[in-house]
Amino acid sequence: MTKHLLRDLEQLSSELLQLTRKVEDQLSAALACVMTRDAENANKVIQTDDEIDRMEVKLEEDALKILALHQPVASDLRFIIAAIKINNDVERIADLAANIAKRAVELSHMAPVAPPDSFEEMAEKARLMVRQAITALIRRDAVLAKQVTREDDTVDQLNRQIARHLRERMKDCAPDHIDPLMRWLSAVRHLERVADMSVNIAEDVIYMVEGDIVRHTRSSGSPG
Amino acid sequence: MTKHLLRDLEQLSSELLQLTRKVEDQLSAALACVMTRDAENANKVIQTDDEIDRMEVKLEEDALKILALHQPVASDLRFIIAAIKINNDVERIADLAANIAKRAVELSHMAPVAPPDSFEEMAEKARLMVRQAITALIRRDAVLAKQVTREDDTVDQLNRQIARHLRERMKDCAPDHIDPLMRWLSAVRHLERVADMSVNIAEDVIYMVEGDIVRHTRSSGSPG
Repeated sequence: MTKHLLRDLEQLSSELLQLTRKVEDQLSAALACVMTRDAENANKVIQTDDEIDRMEVKLEEDALKILALHQPVASDLRFIIAAIKINNDVERIADLAANIAKRAVELSHMAPVAPPDSFEEMAEKARLMVRQAITALIRRDAVLAKQVTREDDTVDQLNRQIARHLRERMKDCAPDHIDPLMRWLSAVRHLERVADMSVNIAEDVIYMVEGDIVRHTRSSGSPG
Repeated sequence: MTKHLLRDLEQLSSELLQLTRKVEDQLSAALACVMTRDAENANKVIQTDDEIDRMEVKLEEDALKILALHQPVASDLRFIIAAIKINNDVERIADLAANIAKRAVELSHMAPVAPPDSFEEMAEKARLMVRQAITALIRRDAVLAKQVTREDDTVDQLNRQIARHLRERMKDCAPDHIDPLMRWLSAVRHLERVADMSVNIAEDVIYMVEGDIVRHTRSSGSPG
């Protein structure tokens, strides 16, 4: 590997790390806002999403420049392709965080309802999956990445349990609770997709390290 | 361009075309099933999703082989990167079609409720967007691709209108309507994401043709 290629790859890693740290912060902030119906901080999360979009576009442009300039092969090529795909998924996590923040803003204008049981547990698990997927990427650790793909089942289970519970509460014939309960359901669904994106990232890390495409080899299926 | 590279790129195009035709069929079938509460055909859509997953993995492997083998540059490189990303989005459309089919199966076991007004209109528009995005890809037509990115606003608007209407119906205190109305809401949401995926594909076509990353330059934002 030439010195220039090495330098460009390190620069790309560091951009990706910076982006994901920012996205992790966005997700944590959005989850806190929805729990506390904090519209002010939720609006900050929503506004910051533009900045993340710009970081994503720049990162992809940089990756494409490296491909065009150095024509890397083998593990360097795999790293760049993985970075392009992970960049996309990290940005989608930021979109999902912004969507959760939008639910917080809407909830702040509605009749207060209790947050669903187990929401904090689900939020904690999804955040951990994001963190582990990124750690696996940085350390090029396929073992940790495989652990992330297994953890998704727990989040799916919590998602189904919370959704069922919210639907039951909607049947109580309290019409002014329908809107806020729907917003909660939406937030939970976005959180479930955050966990899915972490699995995507983990799968790309496994591909990068081992050269294997592992998508679709585990049982999955969106719970809706 | 060498003869071998040309042949491999043509092979990749033809695989991608075959995959997207299959996914279009899946989407049409899923939409018909949810309208008619047809569990039998919906189960066929759900089962066919595994085959699509395998096609996606094979296509990505083939694209990576071409990159490693020929180290293409300029527009060939852009085409392959676009194909890798579009392949991903097409597979996600298939997942969304399978999710809509799952809602059809669930609805078939529940108290019948009228499909939401404007659902067929929204379905028609989303299907047209998928078709146009793929046509733009095949013809390398950036003008058509740009049209697709503009059409998403109509689908978003229909999505919001239908969701609002469904929430109103949930407030009627008919507890046995809550579950089927929720399934309809889920189907509509998945359909809205089909349109989003078409926009992603169109943006990658624009990048491929013009070399520009156009993501995030239009107003967007998930309606929840």
